[in-house]
Amino acid sequence: MATDQVPPIADEMPTVEPEAATAHVDDADVPADKGYRQPEVDVDALRAVLDGRYREVRDLVRANLAEHAQVLLDEEQMSTADFRERVKDVVVMMAATGQTGMGFPEEYGGGGDIGASIAAFETLAFGDLSVLVKVGVQFGLFGGAILQLGTKTHHDAYLADLVSGRTMGCFAMTESGHGSNVQALGTVATYDTASQEFVITTPDDVSRKDYIGNAATHAELAVVFAQLEVGEQRHGVHAFVVPIREDGRVLDGVRIEDCGPKMGLNGVDNGRLWFDGVRVPRTALLNQFAEVTPEGRYLSPIDNPNKRFFTMLGTLVQGRVCVGGAGINAAKVALTIATRYAERRRQFEAVSPDEEQVLLDYGMHQRRLLPLIARTYALHFAQEVVAAQLHDVFSGPGPTDEGADEHARRMLESRAAGTKALGTWHATRTIQECREACGGAGYLSENRFAALKADTDVFTTFEGDNHVLLQLVAKGLLTDYAGEFEDLDQLGMARFVAGIAVETVVERTAVHKLVQSVRDLLPGGDHWDQEAGLLDPNYQLAMLRFREEHMIGGVARRLKRGVDQGMDPGAVFSRVQDHVIAAARAHTERLVLEAFVQKAAALPDGDLKVALNLLCDLHALTTIEADRAWFMEHGRLSSARSKAISREVNALCRKIRPLAVDLVDAFGVPEEMLRSPELLGWPIGQDA
Amino acid sequence: MATDQVPPIADEMPTVEPEAATAHVDDADVPADKGYRQPEVDVDALRAVLDGRYREVRDLVRANLAEHAQVLLDEEQMSTADFRERVKDVVVMMAATGQTGMGFPEEYGGGGDIGASIAAFETLAFGDLSVLVKVGVQFGLFGGAILQLGTKTHHDAYLADLVSGRTMGCFAMTESGHGSNVQALGTVATYDTASQEFVITTPDDVSRKDYIGNAATHAELAVVFAQLEVGEQRHGVHAFVVPIREDGRVLDGVRIEDCGPKMGLNGVDNGRLWFDGVRVPRTALLNQFAEVTPEGRYLSPIDNPNKRFFTMLGTLVQGRVCVGGAGINAAKVALTIATRYAERRRQFEAVSPDEEQVLLDYGMHQRRLLPLIARTYALHFAQEVVAAQLHDVFSGPGPTDEGADEHARRMLESRAAGTKALGTWHATRTIQECREACGGAGYLSENRFAALKADTDVFTTFEGDNHVLLQLVAKGLLTDYAGEFEDLDQLGMARFVAGIAVETVVERTAVHKLVQSVRDLLPGGDHWDQEAGLLDPNYQLAMLRFREEHMIGGVARRLKRGVDQGMDPGAVFSRVQDHVIAAARAHTERLVLEAFVQKAAALPDGDLKVALNLLCDLHALTTIEADRAWFMEHGRLSSARSKAISREVNALCRKIRPLAVDLVDAFGVPEEMLRSPELLGWPIGQDA
Repeated sequence: MATDQVPPIADEMPTVEPEAATAHVDDADVPADKGYRQPEVDVDALRAVLDGRYREVRDLVRANLAEHAQVLLDEEQMSTADFRERVKDVVVMMAATGQTGMGFPEEYGGGGDIGASIAAFETLAFGDLSVLVKVGVQFGLFGGAILQLGTKTHHDAYLADLVSGRTMGCFAMTESGHGSNVQALGTVATYDTASQEFVITTPDDVSRKDYIGNAATHAELAVVFAQLEVGEQRHGVHAFVVPIREDGRVLDGVRIEDCGPKMGLNGVDNGRLWFDGVRVPRTALLNQFAEVTPEGRYLSPIDNPNKRFFTMLGTLVQGRVCVGGAGINAAKVALTIATRYAERRRQFEAVSPDEEQVLLDYGMHQRRLLPLIARTYALHFAQEVVAAQLHDVFSGPGPTDEGADEHARRMLESRAAGTKALGTWHATRTIQECREACGGAGYLSENRFAALKADTDVFTTFEGDNHVLLQLVAKGLLTDYAGEFEDLDQLGMARFVAGIAVETVVERTAVHKLVQSVRDLLPGGDHWDQEAGLLDPNYQLAMLRFREEHMIGGVARRLKRGVDQGMDPGAVFSRVQDHVIAAARAHTERLVLEAFVQKAAALPDGDLKVALNLLCDLHALTTIEADRAWFMEHGRLSSARSKAISREVNALCRKIRPLAVDLVDAFGVPEEMLRSPELLGWPIGQDA
Repeated sequence: MATDQVPPIADEMPTVEPEAATAHVDDADVPADKGYRQPEVDVDALRAVLDGRYREVRDLVRANLAEHAQVLLDEEQMSTADFRERVKDVVVMMAATGQTGMGFPEEYGGGGDIGASIAAFETLAFGDLSVLVKVGVQFGLFGGAILQLGTKTHHDAYLADLVSGRTMGCFAMTESGHGSNVQALGTVATYDTASQEFVITTPDDVSRKDYIGNAATHAELAVVFAQLEVGEQRHGVHAFVVPIREDGRVLDGVRIEDCGPKMGLNGVDNGRLWFDGVRVPRTALLNQFAEVTPEGRYLSPIDNPNKRFFTMLGTLVQGRVCVGGAGINAAKVALTIATRYAERRRQFEAVSPDEEQVLLDYGMHQRRLLPLIARTYALHFAQEVVAAQLHDVFSGPGPTDEGADEHARRMLESRAAGTKALGTWHATRTIQECREACGGAGYLSENRFAALKADTDVFTTFEGDNHVLLQLVAKGLLTDYAGEFEDLDQLGMARFVAGIAVETVVERTAVHKLVQSVRDLLPGGDHWDQEAGLLDPNYQLAMLRFREEHMIGGVARRLKRGVDQGMDPGAVFSRVQDHVIAAARAHTERLVLEAFVQKAAALPDGDLKVALNLLCDLHALTTIEADRAWFMEHGRLSSARSKAISREVNALCRKIRPLAVDLVDAFGVPEEMLRSPELLGWPIGQDA
């Protein structure tokens, strides 16, 4: 499978060739810019760049979305019960087009292309998000668990029916008492040697399964995560296929409760599950990574229980990649509406006493929207990289197969976690800003903001709370995805890091090597930060790489000092936690910018490249600007240069402003998904 | 009326007495703090400080909220039509307790106390916000317009019935084409001398009245804002009382459309209004500031049409004060839930391998919630100041009466605008952070976050878009609330400022005098910024005052330079707009901190004072920290000191952490308003 346009998974990104930098406008003092020629954007060509190798897949989803556009209205007008059925029907109809099964093997009716399945899912986020999440639950979580954790018996038994949507299932992991900390789940699966069955039990109310999508109404099967007990011995969390419903009737020993109305996503039937000694056959254990023999012997190719657990969980990483991509694409919908509105709506006389000024001609309005467009492009390309890496890893040998690349898997998990956190926070922030930028009109449900806000809100906490995910990223950085990785909880990480030299921690990071080469790439030697052009991508990258390396070192130093001083490692961790999160964020921001820079550099010369370079500059400089305090504190930004960056951001906004509508049109959000008749299609403003 | 606890309206705040500063903990290097004794908070005493002089009023509202707590459930369970009726009924029941009429004269059944009416309204924001907004529409907007813009005839005709809720009305100002720019409204009221009537007409669809609360179902009367035309001559926007409905039937010539479902506030019936030559008698003009004689002569005590317009609008400032207060109080609900949850919920082993750690013991979680609590206190006290100023101004002579203090009115309007912007943005941000801090559980509607998020979202744009409001603040600062104020639109302001020396602009600001005295108050002379203690409130205030003065000067300089260079003033304004907004924000932040510092300083020595000083320090330092880049860029913060501030913020968080639950309990949100049975009342977490 060609993934030629994405960097290799090894975290060593080539720097930008000097010729690429020439496509950037000169770093002249604002507003000089002699010789600058405003580029024009070929919307279709830009959309082809964004859609990448999966343009056909994305267009199939766009067509399906347009066909079922009525569901956006149904969400407002139907009762919850009816809307749940409606969403289910849409999901099944979409499944029939092949759209939702692309990641499954062809022999079970799937498409055999993991990258395509992610592209399809992301694109689905242009539409109603209950449909998206229902698809995610059925094919991603439930289907993914059967595929990844099960073996041929399970595949033969379930895949064809779940791919078609004939059998609906749910993914029963989270409990009321345990969300992010999956290892501490309370549900128990005890092996009964006599009957060769597992007995599934919910020991107490905090161990009930909670917020489980598809559980309240539709699921017939559940993949249940439970502590496996064989003959008094616990082997950690494993997954079991448990029938919970037949012909709509809840099975004996299972209790199901509806989670009730939610902030959004009310087309998804979230529920709670209790198991009261429910018996399932020995073969119900999804036994890709562990097996219980009929006579009650526990076998696993992975000896270390923590490693086993993280290996199992790691196979489910696709969910995080999908949620991140969905967040980014939901942001595109909001930006498309707000930008087109800002190009039409006039308010207050500013330049002329006779005509009010178009919103997008206000400097503040440009500042509000254009950096968000730039960041959306950046995250889109970063998401493309992580999706391609996922495709490669999951198209290769399994984690316990010969030739498995464990390091690559850990790095993928880290990258997926970071991109998910940044992508979903970006969605929350962007949708909010766009709603406000449309004023009171944006508050009406017939525009998309109400649903977008309510539905995406949970993205920041599901598939892993964003802060917890960033801690996972930091753990990988600090331990270089070490073999000990799996055994390192927060206490362990603090102790581990405290046990090695700070220099060692830093030297083992990928970013360390990248920083080393800064002096060769930029003029000014040690003064590169003072002398390089603000619009030189090597400068921009150097800044983010320097920050990342320095932050990782800072975290290591602080952990070490605390532990050396005899403080409790947990207390040390708590104190350092904001630095841990900041380092992980800095790391992910660096990866995002690298993805954007490389994408722009790889384009042939021309207006499209000029336009993307403008956007890339805007993204890079607003990212640096947002943390300019840190750069000043750490001697990498003078106050004069810091102010110059803010001026340059404003200048870039003015250059990008004429392109704004083309840039959002290139996202290719189907018109039917925008709704907003009055914001977009209607002559509003003074001169109507 | 005693308003003894608030600073005088003249913008000259006394600095803090040295003795007050001693209540602060030492600025020792973290974590030394020798001799620091952790204070204990008497929740009831702290609540008395927060409730201030209106404790009884607030307790009445609390009791009413608790009595009608069922409405929170009804919001989820009822159809929109039923819920609208339900909300109306609750509003009328509350009106019967006197709660909603406190600002009206006693002879019409009101309470004759404007300050009390604001306190009541703010407190109402603890509950369902459709009820709040319905109250705001009926008594604040509709009733307020009759009271402020009408004269005795109108008062006698309408007030008693509207105060009781017998007559429902709406406030028909906003149009589809014009929200913030009210002066450009399209609806026309033409005087017909022959019949001595006004003819109200909607000339085109963009001039339809839009988003009008109470219009879709309940209002019988509308206060309609329209361009007054008398004999071919236009006199600008005036308000008219127009009957639109009788016994539920829409009157001839009026067309009403429902705005349809909204993101939130669906208990309020927002609608659109068109007028097709609707005739109302000459006395329908609310004639406090302008009159049309029977024979068609236009008379007004205010000659300048702009000044007249802004004077009329200025009398409606109470709406902005109320929305700001409501935002701050809605944030309190979210913080109460999230903080109590964080004190109970355990997740991940951190300090002990046997027991998971309470969320609020994580450094990051403290960082997320505690500065928001501190800022809520700060905004609460700032709101108390603006409410008291409103009370004083509106209890005194009217704007055209003898002894009227026009300067005080302008300053009040500016302060109300700034506080509204900061208060409502704070609500949006706080509710979002609190939802995320409660994880997936926070997404269920049975907690308050869903409704809080959806309902408060529009606060940032109604009663004036926050950015537009901050421009109003900036205009006041740059022109020193000059007589020319009313004539200055964006172009005019740019020209006006360009016409005077930058020094003159700065010298005329109130903050200029405050900055002058910095050297006398702080050690170190010109090096005050290096040598004063971080926890010295005079240092903290000096920083915010310096920033404000410098930003105002910067805006003036930029406007001047642009205009001097021959650029179009509107284009100059657009370029400088982000600086304009930043200056206004800096100004309001300074006022907020002053209010908090003075409140804390006025308390008697004791634990409560120590606790409030900790919170005030946390608010001040997080405010400086958030803009530390600016302070470094402008030479008022070394990088070492900047880092010290971040360390101090963390140290303050650790000191405040044990007080956190008491601090939110002191808000006095009725238990019934918290709902969230599983987040708050239920044994969740490992050791349940």
